[in-house]
Amino acid sequence: MPRLIESVPNISEGRRPEVVEAAVAAVRATGARVLDVQRDADHNRSVLTLAGDETTLRAAIPALFAVAVERIDLRQHKGAHPRLGAVDVVPFIPIEGATMADCVALARAVGEEVAARFGVPVFLYEEAASAAHRKNLEDIRRGEFEGLADKMRRAEWAPDFGPSSPHVSAGATVIGARMALIAYNINLATDRLDVAKKIASAIRQSSGGLRYVKAMGVALADRGIVQVSMNLTNYEKTPVFRVFELVKREASRYGVSILESEIVGLVPAAALAASAAWYLQIEGFSEKQVLENVIRASALPQ
Amino acid sequence: MPRLIESVPNISEGRRPEVVEAAVAAVRATGARVLDVQRDADHNRSVLTLAGDETTLRAAIPALFAVAVERIDLRQHKGAHPRLGAVDVVPFIPIEGATMADCVALARAVGEEVAARFGVPVFLYEEAASAAHRKNLEDIRRGEFEGLADKMRRAEWAPDFGPSSPHVSAGATVIGARMALIAYNINLATDRLDVAKKIASAIRQSSGGLRYVKAMGVALADRGIVQVSMNLTNYEKTPVFRVFELVKREASRYGVSILESEIVGLVPAAALAASAAWYLQIEGFSEKQVLENVIRASALPQ
Repeated sequence: MPRLIESVPNISEGRRPEVVEAAVAAVRATGARVLDVQRDADHNRSVLTLAGDETTLRAAIPALFAVAVERIDLRQHKGAHPRLGAVDVVPFIPIEGATMADCVALARAVGEEVAARFGVPVFLYEEAASAAHRKNLEDIRRGEFEGLADKMRRAEWAPDFGPSSPHVSAGATVIGARMALIAYNINLATDRLDVAKKIASAIRQSSGGLRYVKAMGVALADRGIVQVSMNLTNYEKTPVFRVFELVKREASRYGVSILESEIVGLVPAAALAASAAWYLQIEGFSEKQVLENVIRASALPQ
Repeated sequence: MPRLIESVPNISEGRRPEVVEAAVAAVRATGARVLDVQRDADHNRSVLTLAGDETTLRAAIPALFAVAVERIDLRQHKGAHPRLGAVDVVPFIPIEGATMADCVALARAVGEEVAARFGVPVFLYEEAASAAHRKNLEDIRRGEFEGLADKMRRAEWAPDFGPSSPHVSAGATVIGARMALIAYNINLATDRLDVAKKIASAIRQSSGGLRYVKAMGVALADRGIVQVSMNLTNYEKTPVFRVFELVKREASRYGVSILESEIVGLVPAAALAASAAWYLQIEGFSEKQVLENVIRASALPQ
């Protein structure tokens, strides 16, 4: 089975389509599959979703840098989204036949290469981080491009690879490895925003809840309901079904029932399989019992 | 995306490994993937699980016939399992990018070819059946090889392809298209076999229950519990979660709770995804939201 890794590089360009297209074309030319491109003018940022094996992605990310470093100048960049560099963040995500260790190794190899080739300082984050205080993307990015030169003078913010000060126009880049995120919302059969906020506070890690849940309560004004809007950052350790059941239990405390939930974007098959196995009480369930997995495992390497 | 079809041919040979190996080798030589081979000496029968596209399987099944018709003589064959022919039954099952209509067309094409090349009468069954009374494999196979010549003299048992009487040594073959089966058992926290039998009777189609459920109650004597043992023959129309919930409800009528359930063998990813989506109340869930599906859909045709 070929090792399949996803990468979701974010570049600091969302207004000039020709620059984004040039970046996408450079990536495609390496043989990486481009699954999705989201260009956001307000954020002045684009998110590419790529898939490939390690060899392909090792070529694809530097190809992306070549375009972004040449065409994007952070000194001229304004947008709603915080950013540190022209290529702002590059996560690698294990999908099939690849482990987190493979993705950490890939992050290090790519980081070393782009630092050397483009003179851009690289910070490793999440599972690839070299220290606990550098795991969180938000912590690394705090201060943004404009505060980067000062920040990097502090020892704890020396880069993992590359020069000890920012690239003059391309800033710095954050590269790492993480689990696939699931953007998961639960809609409540009420218009009481306080209930959604209380539930969000109860279940998220930052205020004492589940380890891999980020959550906030929001109003869906046009529908007259409220929502617990979440990111699940490790569906193996904090599975979807446990989040759903906990939200349901908290909601019942306020006499509120769950209207529905929704997956925003994509969800790994394993996250759904684990939920099915839990609710159906399937004993000894294994991913090797999934027909498609067996078929793919039998395929010759591509 | 390449069209992926599964086929699970059953051949009437489970005692001579060299014959089964020759059959498997002939199939492999066509490029079909052999996912599994189960050889059963008591049944004197082997079950091959193959996967491939239409072109590959159109070559693989006749290659299997060439070996089986030459090496298997039903006049000498004894075994616990009912059988009609050397190649006894060949179902085609849509997996990915293939529809049931594709599988019906493939069953007809393969049936016509093997009837012409090997002189074996072919009965089409399940979704490929040419009449309602010929849908069920058990009905076609009733009377077995020994009763076949008499049976075929009746107009309603004329074959769909091939000669109007059995092949002298290879009998006849049943070829068709069906959904993937799920072998699904639910273990009850009781030793009362009557409860398992009552539940099986309540939920199976044959006695008034769910349309695509076959069920029986059995004792697991060594564990001191009982089991509702099921085949789910169409998981799209009678989904796993509905079967589980109905069994749970029926069991509660007798004060019995569910200990666990189990998947025997393989389960299609879509059956698990549908169960997860139902329990998690995911509104508007689509298979296109499954990360792996998007990645595969983006792959170039192989």
